[in-house]
Amino acid sequence: MTQSDLENRSIIIKTVVWGENVHEQTNKVVADIYPDGMHGAIAAALNADDGITATTATLQDPEHGLTAERLADTDVLLWWGHAAHGDVSDDVVERVAEAVWSGMGLILLHSAHFAKPFKRLMGTPCNLTWREAGERERMWVTTRGHPIAKGLPDHFELENEEMYGEPFGVPEPLETVFVSWFQGGEVFRSGLTYRRGLGNIFYFRPGHETYPTYHDANVQTVLKNAVHWAHNEQRMTGDVNVAPNLPVEEALEPIEERGPRLHQDGEEGYR
Amino acid sequence: MTQSDLENRSIIIKTVVWGENVHEQTNKVVADIYPDGMHGAIAAALNADDGITATTATLQDPEHGLTAERLADTDVLLWWGHAAHGDVSDDVVERVAEAVWSGMGLILLHSAHFAKPFKRLMGTPCNLTWREAGERERMWVTTRGHPIAKGLPDHFELENEEMYGEPFGVPEPLETVFVSWFQGGEVFRSGLTYRRGLGNIFYFRPGHETYPTYHDANVQTVLKNAVHWAHNEQRMTGDVNVAPNLPVEEALEPIEERGPRLHQDGEEGYR
Amino acid sequence: MTQSDLENRSIIIKTVVWGENVHEQTNKVVADIYPDGMHGAIAAALNADDGITATTATLQDPEHGLTAERLADTDVLLWWGHAAHGDVSDDVVERVAEAVWSGMGLILLHSAHFAKPFKRLMGTPCNLTWREAGERERMWVTTRGHPIAKGLPDHFELENEEMYGEPFGVPEPLETVFVSWFQGGEVFRSGLTYRRGLGNIFYFRPGHETYPTYHDANVQTVLKNAVHWAHNEQRMTGDVNVAPNLPVEEALEPIEERGPRLHQDGEEGYR
Amino acid sequence: MTQSDLENRSIIIKTVVWGENVHEQTNKVVADIYPDGMHGAIAAALNADDGITATTATLQDPEHGLTAERLADTDVLLWWGHAAHGDVSDDVVERVAEAVWSGMGLILLHSAHFAKPFKRLMGTPCNLTWREAGERERMWVTTRGHPIAKGLPDHFELENEEMYGEPFGVPEPLETVFVSWFQGGEVFRSGLTYRRGLGNIFYFRPGHETYPTYHDANVQTVLKNAVHWAHNEQRMTGDVNVAPNLPVEEALEPIEERGPRLHQDGEEGYR
Repeated sequence: MTQSDLENRSIIIKTVVWGENVHEQTNKVVADIYPDGMHGAIAAALNADDGITATTATLQDPEHGLTAERLADTDVLLWWGHAAHGDVSDDVVERVAEAVWSGMGLILLHSAHFAKPFKRLMGTPCNLTWREAGERERMWVTTRGHPIAKGLPDHFELENEEMYGEPFGVPEPLETVFVSWFQGGEVFRSGLTYRRGLGNIFYFRPGHETYPTYHDANVQTVLKNAVHWAHNEQRMTGDVNVAPNLPVEEALEPIEERGPRLHQDGEEGYR
Repeated sequence: MTQSDLENRSIIIKTVVWGENVHEQTNKVVADIYPDGMHGAIAAALNADDGITATTATLQDPEHGLTAERLADTDVLLWWGHAAHGDVSDDVVERVAEAVWSGMGLILLHSAHFAKPFKRLMGTPCNLTWREAGERERMWVTTRGHPIAKGLPDHFELENEEMYGEPFGVPEPLETVFVSWFQGGEVFRSGLTYRRGLGNIFYFRPGHETYPTYHDANVQTVLKNAVHWAHNEQRMTGDVNVAPNLPVEEALEPIEERGPRLHQDGEEGYR
Repeated sequence: MTQSDLENRSIIIKTVVWGENVHEQTNKVVADIYPDGMHGAIAAALNADDGITATTATLQDPEHGLTAERLADTDVLLWWGHAAHGDVSDDVVERVAEAVWSGMGLILLHSAHFAKPFKRLMGTPCNLTWREAGERERMWVTTRGHPIAKGLPDHFELENEEMYGEPFGVPEPLETVFVSWFQGGEVFRSGLTYRRGLGNIFYFRPGHETYPTYHDANVQTVLKNAVHWAHNEQRMTGDVNVAPNLPVEEALEPIEERGPRLHQDGEEGYR
Repeated sequence: MTQSDLENRSIIIKTVVWGENVHEQTNKVVADIYPDGMHGAIAAALNADDGITATTATLQDPEHGLTAERLADTDVLLWWGHAAHGDVSDDVVERVAEAVWSGMGLILLHSAHFAKPFKRLMGTPCNLTWREAGERERMWVTTRGHPIAKGLPDHFELENEEMYGEPFGVPEPLETVFVSWFQGGEVFRSGLTYRRGLGNIFYFRPGHETYPTYHDANVQTVLKNAVHWAHNEQRMTGDVNVAPNLPVEEALEPIEERGPRLHQDGEEGYR
């Protein structure tokens, strides 16, 4: 092979739910809805699935709980952040991006549309319009039969949610799985899939901290499905940025070097 | 409108060809092929098109020749870099990214697969395999009738080029316009289109500095077509990252605020 | 070249608006709103654009007004049908499909989601849910800066429209340009782009015959933009289905025939 | 739900390998390479995977071995055809298309680019250039880590294959998984994924009948991976073309009927 080797992953999906864990500590409303934290509630829901083993990590942990060793042992990472996007270490963000490129799945939740790892991987502003009024949201399945929609009806409702409105400043996705209707008159592409490197990425809109969204059975079904969908059984080992210089004498078809050259044999090349 | 306004752009496409301009100064082979610099040769080819007015900018210019004012007045930017990717200012990279999001077209040439603006906008490693042997490259049109392929045959040859090989570490494009065959046995997706924000992006593979690629008539046709394709007649003014908080009382459909809230009226929201 | 040649097309876009022209003749409500027919109203709106010259054709014309000669001279075809989808000749449908493959743009309007040419080109059921209640539709731009959205605000309303709801049984588009919000609680991907062969295809949802939708200024802007977007300056001449057998002795790289063979030199191959 | 219900499928993937079975009967070369037929060889390779149970069907069977009952019980269908595309019953083609829309996976092999079911589902000519010279083909993985490429190196070779060349007349895929290099100078997008309705579709290029391609270990790996990728655990029951008319009084949000109407309550609507 001309690039880094691939290894196969376990069948049981090792999942980490990353929570910012700020409003749970500072806002009684949020603390009452999520006594174990939003990350705790999400991990508990995922652990109800025999194919998933979920743990948690938070902003306050050393290295935000996302050391290189832990990311290497993580198949799928879920990310919820809001008030403290700016406090996330750029080193950890780059580490997460490289883990995704090597094959770790990444699921971005709600206000994580502005999380550093999502903006880093999308290369766009990821902006939108918003309104916090506890209005009704109705999620519609636009790609029937998508694995992430397994077991869902064509639509389901969240009686109280924060509104996010189009235009949503993201790249065109591989597939648009959900579109939301809002009581106040907006729409939003609420479930979008991407691949970046070997990593599968899913953005899922609902989950404002002042509402019990992650206790909703349909939302929990989406999250479990998304973990299975995002899991790549292959993982790249070694340098995900490698760009090998292939020697002329080892060309797959016989060629002879012609013309002038800039580089010396085995040179790394410019970056 | 709920986001920044849009303005219409001129019909004549204001184009800037950015050149790293290093090997032209330090390598006699390159200087002999491109006495006016690679950027100069490309700009001259573009100016042969009545619909395009092209100027140049280089790494050595103040702010690399890419001030905020100039980018605001640029419809399409072409980028050639290789030896000095690391010398490009991160501020200028962010400025270029924001210009693309606002609607400026961006065309990345050859070794610019590792240029900071491309990696910033793709969110991937953008890596590949390579071999500098002056081997034959044959470009095949895979999306017939694409505007970027206008006037081209189904295939054309470059007798001497540097090889780039798959896997190419980029996101799945909107469309794959060209695929290259190489004498040594590799293939490469040589023409890829993307949209990021309002900006159209095109990556075009050929153009190693030690060969006369940019003097090739078919290559010049591709570049002219690409400038026309990348030109967006609309340009966003104001903040491309704006995420407005919409007041409840101004909702498009009458709603009343329900449930607890985190934010105050008119609050900016978290980033 | 190894396939059919391409020719360049005129700058003024020769456009044909195809109308089923049934309800205009049989339903007083429709006749009062569109005294010149829906096709007549749409053609008049398009002719207000200096870059477009629009004529009309109807189901009742010989060959539905779509002879091989006329299609060869048509750059963009708009299609509105509803009550009489089944009366459209399969020969004309195939002729339209081949014209699209050769580079003719095709714009499908509203109930044309079930028109034979659309189903032929999509290869899917193209089904949806619907309700005729004159409810409010609000169109949202999801791809800001797309040429089809040029000059539009981020959203606009149609006070009375027929509802179409997701899931919409079509392939994932190249880009989702519009998403609709409906008063009754549904959403719909209302503006979708595709390419089939050299032909650009745009599906646009609004346009129920009992409402004055095609007199709406924003809708007319979309249609004019869509004609410009769908126009391909290149058109394939000759057989769009050709699959040439390339002789070994004319291979681009020298090869010698090896192994057993099924086919004789110059044989057409199986279909 | 507003459309047909979905059912879950078995974990063991019920797979049918459809073979035209003509050259195996009429051409000694093919018969010697594939004594059990190409379909037999492919089914045997698939049955080596514990997660797959594969049977065969041929053109000569009643209803080509693809009765409605059998398709309803098939999770993934593989299709190899060449000399007798025209002999395939249009009724069976439509039956296959509807099975795909309902969730059956479909894998098209080599000359099946011109098979009726593929052309029906793509809506394009599906044409290409070709040369039967037993030349070398080298398959490159362009989407590393894709499930269909699991366990493969970055490239592998087939010493003798028929050449297929670009442009390939198909829609832009969801993802381009493989691109082929040919000794004679052509390239081809050899592994392409699509979704049509609930059905996952994969086109895989190699497999000319006069060469032992389906005995190649890498090719067998691709086929096994593709069956797992194409398997949708959900299957739509009932009418895949249903387009329900939703009554005003049952609208999800309270609305009152306004304006004139064409349709009566519960009416089927036009097709």
